[in-house]
Amino acid sequence: MTNYCSASVEEQGSIVALSFPDGTQDRFHAIWLRDNAPDPATRSQQNGQRLITLIDIPEDTRVSAIDLILPDSLNLTFEPENKIVTYSLDWLLQHSYDKYDAPSTGWLDSKIKTWDGSMSSNVPSASYKSVIQDQKALGRWLSHIRRYGFAKMTGCPIESGALVDIAELFGFVRETNYGKWFEVRTEVNPTNLAYTGAGLQAHTDNPYRDPVPTMQILYCLENSAEGGDSMVVDGFRAVRRLQEESPKSFDLLARYCARYEYSGEANVNLTARKPMIDLQPDGELIGIRFNNRSTAPIVDVPFDLMSDYYKAYRRLSAIVSDPSMAVRFKLSPGECFIVDNTRVLHSRSAYSGEGSRWLQGCYPDKDGMLSTLAAMESSIMEIEL
Amino acid sequence: MTNYCSASVEEQGSIVALSFPDGTQDRFHAIWLRDNAPDPATRSQQNGQRLITLIDIPEDTRVSAIDLILPDSLNLTFEPENKIVTYSLDWLLQHSYDKYDAPSTGWLDSKIKTWDGSMSSNVPSASYKSVIQDQKALGRWLSHIRRYGFAKMTGCPIESGALVDIAELFGFVRETNYGKWFEVRTEVNPTNLAYTGAGLQAHTDNPYRDPVPTMQILYCLENSAEGGDSMVVDGFRAVRRLQEESPKSFDLLARYCARYEYSGEANVNLTARKPMIDLQPDGELIGIRFNNRSTAPIVDVPFDLMSDYYKAYRRLSAIVSDPSMAVRFKLSPGECFIVDNTRVLHSRSAYSGEGSRWLQGCYPDKDGMLSTLAAMESSIMEIEL
Repeated sequence: MTNYCSASVEEQGSIVALSFPDGTQDRFHAIWLRDNAPDPATRSQQNGQRLITLIDIPEDTRVSAIDLILPDSLNLTFEPENKIVTYSLDWLLQHSYDKYDAPSTGWLDSKIKTWDGSMSSNVPSASYKSVIQDQKALGRWLSHIRRYGFAKMTGCPIESGALVDIAELFGFVRETNYGKWFEVRTEVNPTNLAYTGAGLQAHTDNPYRDPVPTMQILYCLENSAEGGDSMVVDGFRAVRRLQEESPKSFDLLARYCARYEYSGEANVNLTARKPMIDLQPDGELIGIRFNNRSTAPIVDVPFDLMSDYYKAYRRLSAIVSDPSMAVRFKLSPGECFIVDNTRVLHSRSAYSGEGSRWLQGCYPDKDGMLSTLAAMESSIMEIEL
Repeated sequence: MTNYCSASVEEQGSIVALSFPDGTQDRFHAIWLRDNAPDPATRSQQNGQRLITLIDIPEDTRVSAIDLILPDSLNLTFEPENKIVTYSLDWLLQHSYDKYDAPSTGWLDSKIKTWDGSMSSNVPSASYKSVIQDQKALGRWLSHIRRYGFAKMTGCPIESGALVDIAELFGFVRETNYGKWFEVRTEVNPTNLAYTGAGLQAHTDNPYRDPVPTMQILYCLENSAEGGDSMVVDGFRAVRRLQEESPKSFDLLARYCARYEYSGEANVNLTARKPMIDLQPDGELIGIRFNNRSTAPIVDVPFDLMSDYYKAYRRLSAIVSDPSMAVRFKLSPGECFIVDNTRVLHSRSAYSGEGSRWLQGCYPDKDGMLSTLAAMESSIMEIEL
C-alpha cells in the first residue's frame, strides 16, 4: 500500500478525501477520524480501549492540514485542538464507509454458508483426539461451526459431564434452570417433552428465553434404542427458501413478534416476545426462533394479517420438516454435535423398544466461540478450511 | 365472566366472533384457535408444551359448531377433524388480538418506569437480611429491578465471591472471559480500563458481546479511597429524551449498526455489530448499548448520514453524562447494586489517594430473574410494590 494520488480536505475541513488513480474517492468525516484516532492519548496502547468520550472532542472539529506520507501513512492536523494524528492508509482503506450500499432484506454475513440435506455426504466433523492435540484442527472445527452453524465430533470420552470439556475448548457454558448441563433421556414425569421418547419436530431450543442460548452441544453416552436419529436443518436456508417462495411471508414472520413460554417446572415462568425471523435493522438475517412445543398464543399480529401470518408460519413449518432440508445421522456413544442455536434447528425421530438412549446437553456461548476463533485467526495460524 | 351476548362464526367458519353488549367484537381465526387448543391431545397437561406441530393441523381448518356455555366457556367443533375443544372465555379475552394498534416507535412495556436523578432521594433498595428471610421482600426487590432496571442491596456479607450468592437468590451467573466474577480494582497492567483508578463515562458493559450480559451486580468489599462514587443512568430515559429533542437522531441510532470490539487480553477478540438503540420490529424499546471505551469504527452508516449520526451520538453522549440524569452514591463495604445492563448505564468517578477500592462484579441473566419473579407472582403471593 499504496498508490493514492492525493489527499485533500473538503467542506471547510470537515471531510478528508483520498483520491485514487482510477478517479474514485474514499471520504472520511473529520469527526469520525478524530474519534477513531489511534494515538496514545485517545486509545490505550495496552488494551486498545478508547480513553476519551465523544464529548471530549470539540464539536467543531475539522482538519486544517494534511501530510500524505506515501506509501503508507497520513498525518492529519485537527483544529481547534491543534493535534496531529498519524493514520495508516491500510487501516483507513479497511474501514472505508464511503461505498455504503443499502443491503437487501435477509442478507447474510460472508462467513456464513447455507446448506441443505445434500451436506449429508460431507458433514463437518473432527475427532476429539485431533482438536485436543492440534490448535489448527480445533480452529478448523470452530470455523466450520461459524460457517455452517453445525459440526460433529467423534471419539469423545464416554463420561457423564464430558460435554463441558468440549465447550471449554473454546468458551463458556451458560447455566440455566436446566442446569450447567442436562440429561436428555426418558423420564417418568418429564418436565419437558425432550425427556420422553417422542419424536420432536425440528426446533431451536428455549425461544422463551431472551437472549436464547446461542449454541448447544448434544453429547451421546448411550444409544442402543430403536430410532432416536438426530436431524439438523439450516434455519437460514429454510427462511431464505420461504423468502424466495414468498417475500411477503418472510416479512410477516420478521416484522411481527411471536410469543413463547415455558413453565413446565416449579419456580420457572419463562416468556419471550420475539419474531421467528430475527433481522438487524439493516436487514441482515441473524436469527431464527422455531419451536412448536413452546410457541405461546401469538397476539402481536394485526387481525387482518393473522391469516397470512399463519400461512407463512405453516409454510415454514413444512419447510423445516422437509426431509430434503435435513442432515440425518445417529449418534454413537462418544459422539456429539454442536449447533448454532440462533440458526440451526435440530430434531430427533421417536425411539422406543429395548436398549437405551442417553444424551447430555449444554449451552455454550457463541460470542466466546467466535472470539476464540478470531483470536486464533489473528495470531498463530492461518486456518485451512 | 361474562356477559357476552353471543358467539358466531364468520367467513365460512374461518373466524369466530364474540359479540359484546356494547356492540364491540373480539374475533379469532379458526386456525389460531385450533393451534392454541388447550385439550390434552394438543397440550401436555403435565408441562404445558404443545404436542403437535402446525402441519399436523389441517390447512382448511374451520369451525362448524359453537356452543356458548355461559358464564365461562365456549365449545368449538373443528372440521375436518370433527374435534370439539373447550375454551375458557376468560382465557380468550386475555389473548384477544382483534384490537391491535400499531405502536409508536420507542414504546415501553407497561412494567417499565423510567427515571432520572430525582430518584436519588428514593433509591430502590433492600437489605440482605430481609430478602433471605422473606420471599415477599425478595419479590419486591426483583420487581423494582424489573421496573427501574436498578436496585441496591445493603448489609451483605463482606466476603469475596459473596456476590454470586446474591445472583443465586434469583437465577444464574453468566461466565465469560472475565470469569464467573471479576475483580474491579486498580491493577498494574490493566487489561481493561475498569481495572484502573480512572473515571469511567456512563456505559453499558460488554457491548462487544452478542448477546450482551443482561444484568450486572457490582459488589463492594472495600471503599476507603478518595472518590470512586457510583452513578447510574436510565438509558431508556436518556434515549427517549433524545427522541423528544430529535426523532431523527433517535432513528439514526436505532436504524444503523454501530460496532464494538475488545481484544485487551490474550486469546480474546470480541466484536459485535449492533445498533446503540435496540428496538423490536414493532418499535418497542428493548435495549441500549453505549460504551465509549469499546466502540469500534462505525462503518455501517451511509456517508451522507454519518455527520448526522455523529451529532446524534454526541447528543446521547452528553445526555448520559448530564448529572441531572444520574443517581449518585458511594458504595460502602457490604453494599452492592444491580443494573439491567440492556438498559441502565453505570459510571464511576475517578479515585486515588490513600485507602483502597475493591469491588467485584458478575453478570446474572435477566431472563432467569424475570422467570423467578413471574413464578413468584403467579403462585405464592401478591407482591406489594
